[in-house]
Amino acid sequence: MEQVIEHKLEQFRELNKKIRGYYEAVALMAWDLRTGAPRKGAETRAETLGILSTESFKLQTSPEMGELLSFLNRPEILEQLDDVNRRTVENVQEEYDRSIKIPAEKYQEYVTLTSHSETLWEDFKENSDFASFEPYLTQIVAKLQEFIDYWGPKDTRYDTLLNLYEPELTTVKLDEVFGQLRDRLVPLVEAIQASPNKPEAEFLNQLFDKDQQEKFSKFLLEQMGYDFDAGRIDESVHPFATGLNPGDVRITTHYLQDDVTSALFSSLHEGGHALYEQNLSTELTGTPLAEGTSMGIHESQSRFWENMIGRSRSFWERYFADLQQHFPEQLASVTAEDFHRAVNRVENSLIRTESDELTYNLHIIIRYELEKQLFNDGLSVKDLPKAWNEKYEKYLGIIPPNDGVGVLQDVHWSGGSFGYFPSYSLGNMYAAQIANTIRKEISNFDELIAEGNFAPIKEWLIDKIYKYGKSRKPAELILEITGEELNPNYLADYLEQKYKAIYNL
Amino acid sequence: MEQVIEHKLEQFRELNKKIRGYYEAVALMAWDLRTGAPRKGAETRAETLGILSTESFKLQTSPEMGELLSFLNRPEILEQLDDVNRRTVENVQEEYDRSIKIPAEKYQEYVTLTSHSETLWEDFKENSDFASFEPYLTQIVAKLQEFIDYWGPKDTRYDTLLNLYEPELTTVKLDEVFGQLRDRLVPLVEAIQASPNKPEAEFLNQLFDKDQQEKFSKFLLEQMGYDFDAGRIDESVHPFATGLNPGDVRITTHYLQDDVTSALFSSLHEGGHALYEQNLSTELTGTPLAEGTSMGIHESQSRFWENMIGRSRSFWERYFADLQQHFPEQLASVTAEDFHRAVNRVENSLIRTESDELTYNLHIIIRYELEKQLFNDGLSVKDLPKAWNEKYEKYLGIIPPNDGVGVLQDVHWSGGSFGYFPSYSLGNMYAAQIANTIRKEISNFDELIAEGNFAPIKEWLIDKIYKYGKSRKPAELILEITGEELNPNYLADYLEQKYKAIYNL
Repeated sequence: MEQVIEHKLEQFRELNKKIRGYYEAVALMAWDLRTGAPRKGAETRAETLGILSTESFKLQTSPEMGELLSFLNRPEILEQLDDVNRRTVENVQEEYDRSIKIPAEKYQEYVTLTSHSETLWEDFKENSDFASFEPYLTQIVAKLQEFIDYWGPKDTRYDTLLNLYEPELTTVKLDEVFGQLRDRLVPLVEAIQASPNKPEAEFLNQLFDKDQQEKFSKFLLEQMGYDFDAGRIDESVHPFATGLNPGDVRITTHYLQDDVTSALFSSLHEGGHALYEQNLSTELTGTPLAEGTSMGIHESQSRFWENMIGRSRSFWERYFADLQQHFPEQLASVTAEDFHRAVNRVENSLIRTESDELTYNLHIIIRYELEKQLFNDGLSVKDLPKAWNEKYEKYLGIIPPNDGVGVLQDVHWSGGSFGYFPSYSLGNMYAAQIANTIRKEISNFDELIAEGNFAPIKEWLIDKIYKYGKSRKPAELILEITGEELNPNYLADYLEQKYKAIYNL
Repeated sequence: MEQVIEHKLEQFRELNKKIRGYYEAVALMAWDLRTGAPRKGAETRAETLGILSTESFKLQTSPEMGELLSFLNRPEILEQLDDVNRRTVENVQEEYDRSIKIPAEKYQEYVTLTSHSETLWEDFKENSDFASFEPYLTQIVAKLQEFIDYWGPKDTRYDTLLNLYEPELTTVKLDEVFGQLRDRLVPLVEAIQASPNKPEAEFLNQLFDKDQQEKFSKFLLEQMGYDFDAGRIDESVHPFATGLNPGDVRITTHYLQDDVTSALFSSLHEGGHALYEQNLSTELTGTPLAEGTSMGIHESQSRFWENMIGRSRSFWERYFADLQQHFPEQLASVTAEDFHRAVNRVENSLIRTESDELTYNLHIIIRYELEKQLFNDGLSVKDLPKAWNEKYEKYLGIIPPNDGVGVLQDVHWSGGSFGYFPSYSLGNMYAAQIANTIRKEISNFDELIAEGNFAPIKEWLIDKIYKYGKSRKPAELILEITGEELNPNYLADYLEQKYKAIYNL
């Protein structure tokens, strides 16, 4: 390679590493705020977060970055780069374009608006007060519509938002897969509701010591191969995973004395996110590729470990005795089969985050359809509660008694995250499609789970998914692994098979 | 004020606030590394720390800062500024001059050398291997001699280093006070050694549950007025306090099962540091004045709470019953008086960090005299172990059996911190001098301690010391509070009085 290319590439790598440094500092400050930073430091901390984020944004959109990209991002240069460098250039170019197109003052206004609105949302939700929330949400939607114009609308205006979280996915494709999924899940949910053979879950309504829950969560994380030398587990109000760097991928959970399943499944869920980032190829370190490739693929990994493994019958055949040892009194007369059935009961509920593995997808499809209507079809914000309630009645057969447990329940829209919700169900669909392939390639998959031998499964996921980070686009990755495009039937098949057994349909 | 001044001042404040943002991020990353960051993330973290520190240094020495200072730091402008702004300009100018005078590549070499040397020192200490340490220390001393030339030597070359930690203090003054102190303490130590009336401390050689220790430490911190809404306590190998911002001042301690006094007194010590920074005036927030004014004054506050209060007889009259409740078995037959005597026993020991309140000062004086000889009088590094051992024999009557427990025992020199050691004894002297004034101004000082009523004491310290942060120089502050310059006789008086009672001299 010519010396001038080497030199430019070196500058480019150094600049990206510096941006990564800001990323780590900001991520640590955010983690700290949620895991025990003292209350009185929060205001200054918020300013500090603003200062460092702004500096990082300036580097990403700096003239230096612009010049490096215009030198490197040319076919005759790109063909001389290795895969990681080429993908890095492409990725940085996309981010650069996205950032540079929004005038700085517009962006600043948006940040102020959403951070304000996110704070106020808590009260609005508490008081079921959509009327007060409406002007904020109207402004947010208007600003995002402006941003879509700056960025340039794609097939539809909503596609532009969707691609912030799931690159290259289209509304056309999502309409197709969500349509198919909905058409198969709605009858399944109805059949389950009609079934007399419902799982017994009364034994979960007991108190479970938090220290024992903590021990068991750590035990499960060790079992699944979470590396405690490259991470730690803490407690926070809402569980999350955050990768500060590939040697430092932290998770949190929340131990509830009256709900033993909450911390347990959230540990498996966040552990799945963390396994992904702990096992990125080291050649990605310091580049923007050292992340999950999309929200959907990231979510597929958390849900793979939480649901495909953690809510499977094989898993509880192996681990129920351990759980029982942690809670001998509470679980004395419970069997592995009882427990497996109890953690897989289906209930049509109002709240997305409390819903089961099956109806969860209907909660998401409702949000997706509403977001699309808002951005593509002129639905106005003031009509949102009515539209929300109609869809809940149609898909889940229930009507929210108030907006607090209806349209106001999620934080996402208050912070401007339109286009994010589909990721959750994409994760479920990717996970089921990937699990289908694993079963073909690792023929004793269920036996491995029943033995608690996760190493071969983890190695497979590292080799097919984790190591690539962002150097493969989601669609490319799923095609490479499974030999076909995203296909919702794997999820529908999996759910049908699972619930037919449990509900004896 | 003219609009142009307003405008420049606003830019200056914004720039300082930005630098403060970097400071907070770096301090949090350092805190995190010492309180549980996962091992495998440490390498990337070190790079990230380097990246952010460098960016902060660039801002501090930027042409923008230079221009703002040359505009603001002129008599006709300064006279129009309020106290905080004027002091900020002066402080930033000092830092700017200090940084700008060292060529960047020289500074980078020094940082690499000392970080390397500090890492290697652990092994050298472990193996008592001064010969291997010598070339590093020789280079460090040579580099600091170069820096002294860049900065410009003061009265003596050593003064320049001393002033990095204690502004405006001179070697002449320190010779005088340390000389007086040494001349009064050496005979006191000898009298104590000869006394047959030694405190009994055998009961401390028991195991004390760590959870109970933690509870008691938190209890004491609450009692002294440490604000847990503006801080938190964690565990680390070496206890420390760190102020991320005035609403977030954290401390750490270390619970040792076989030494109940370690965490107890380190909590009071770090709590003293923290009280200082939790109670800075809010008008200093975001400026470089939002810190303790010097290492010596900072240390005076930790030692005031640890020793003047925490090792006083009144304190244990009030709190021994509480301690006993935490450890009913271990302390069943111990009295408050026994405990007070036991935690005040004097032993001529080799290790500074394990030494008592009295002999501690002799450990410091030894280091001070050696540092001075190294920088002012041509003592060569290779002769340091011999000089060290001679002084230990002379002042403490003991000779280190090897360099690991002798000249290699402290981390400071390996990291280039020459001039820092005097701060510790300055802290003791300031604390005793301040305590003398408090006793005059709060006549029921001992009664307040015996009642555990620290609020009036804390308020006095806030009003006289804490609120000012760095907006008063140490000498100015001590003169304002006590009406005289630093005077070592208060410490000597206090120690004589205290130990005469305990040892019945």
